Amino acid sequence: MNYPEKNPISQQLFHSKRSTVKRVPKRGSYERELIYQILDEGFICYVSFVADGQPFVIPTAYGRVEDKLYIHGSPASRMLRALQTGIEVCVCVTLVDGLVLARSAFHHSLNYRSIVIFGTATIVKEEEDKLAALKAFCDHIIPDRWQATRPPNPHELKGTLVLSLPLNEASAKVRTGAPIDDEKDYEIPVWAGVIPLTITPGEPISDPRLSPDISVPAHVRDYVSK
Amino acid sequence: MNYPEKNPISQQLFHSKRSTVKRVPKRGSYERELIYQILDEGFICYVSFVADGQPFVIPTAYGRVEDKLYIHGSPASRMLRALQTGIEVCVCVTLVDGLVLARSAFHHSLNYRSIVIFGTATIVKEEEDKLAALKAFCDHIIPDRWQATRPPNPHELKGTLVLSLPLNEASAKVRTGAPIDDEKDYEIPVWAGVIPLTITPGEPISDPRLSPDISVPAHVRDYVSK
Repeated sequence: MNYPEKNPISQQLFHSKRSTVKRVPKRGSYERELIYQILDEGFICYVSFVADGQPFVIPTAYGRVEDKLYIHGSPASRMLRALQTGIEVCVCVTLVDGLVLARSAFHHSLNYRSIVIFGTATIVKEEEDKLAALKAFCDHIIPDRWQATRPPNPHELKGTLVLSLPLNEASAKVRTGAPIDDEKDYEIPVWAGVIPLTITPGEPISDPRLSPDISVPAHVRDYVSK
Repeated sequence: MNYPEKNPISQQLFHSKRSTVKRVPKRGSYERELIYQILDEGFICYVSFVADGQPFVIPTAYGRVEDKLYIHGSPASRMLRALQTGIEVCVCVTLVDGLVLARSAFHHSLNYRSIVIFGTATIVKEEEDKLAALKAFCDHIIPDRWQATRPPNPHELKGTLVLSLPLNEASAKVRTGAPIDDEKDYEIPVWAGVIPLTITPGEPISDPRLSPDISVPAHVRDYVSK
């Protein structure tokens, strides 16, 4: 796959046949900013690859730094061992925003924001880059966490394989708003509309082994109350 | 792949090399009941397949009836056109239950419940089975919805391709509970614990074209207030 060489962080991501939204193309987008927003709001990405002719899809946490998506894990991970050989990978992140209840069963749907990324991953070898990726994982779970924690020691750094996937070729697909029924169905006396869904953080549960004189810090309080 | 022939709906799902949880195997399970629970609670499944040597992962809604997972869409869908040829498919559903904040950056994690299914899909041809699958989609979005809606007409039925994936070979992976730090890190004075995450339905938003004398029905009220 040859990507456009100039201006690699362009506003619009590259898309080819494989990454073009075909079903309901008006819902498709290649806007970098939208793709970053969706990535930054999700928690889990779904990594698809082929090993021995068999497709696999594995859920995993991730981090983003500018135009790179990072995934990580044990060097013994089947997924990471396969990906580090440079095989094609396809990664999806989806946020579910609402249940779309139409008058007809046929037009029921979900409101969602989704992205699919294509490319090949490479191992992050430089310690500085690896630490930046690990900071991104930590701060992706909850903002400002990294600075509060014990940083990785040499043993942990060695025991963590970090892969980088460039955000070159990707597409977003977004559905928003009310159900869209067939024109003649609008007179059917059935409630139709949207039930919004949001992910809500609950009260923080302290580790049972936490010393009682350690209180919930600002970065956790802020997250829960936002 | 040869599955055990007897007792196809056994309590434990079949698992082979590809479907065995290898990383942190104590988090793995092949319990049918757990796998059904996770499927029934999720909204989106991630369908992975290979087309022209390229892995794809596509998010899509789904329904379950007993030991079958149904996906559906337009007969023009790239995914459905590929899957109906009987190629291998791998499907993942993940629920994120919490943010796990450890004392060390290294031990940060998510609490989650995840399943990965392997198999091949077949087209649902019989009208009765197809209607049962479409009912499952509708009632999976929100329970008891199907009975309230206009059922599919012959044109819609013809325009919907439904594929069935048997729940024969699958694994679950679950992480629950507090962070697990290295023993010597427990004395670090950093707050550690879990922030639970739940998906919360908001107030139903009526379709702008809804007649003002149609009120929110019980199945929507119940869902939102539960």
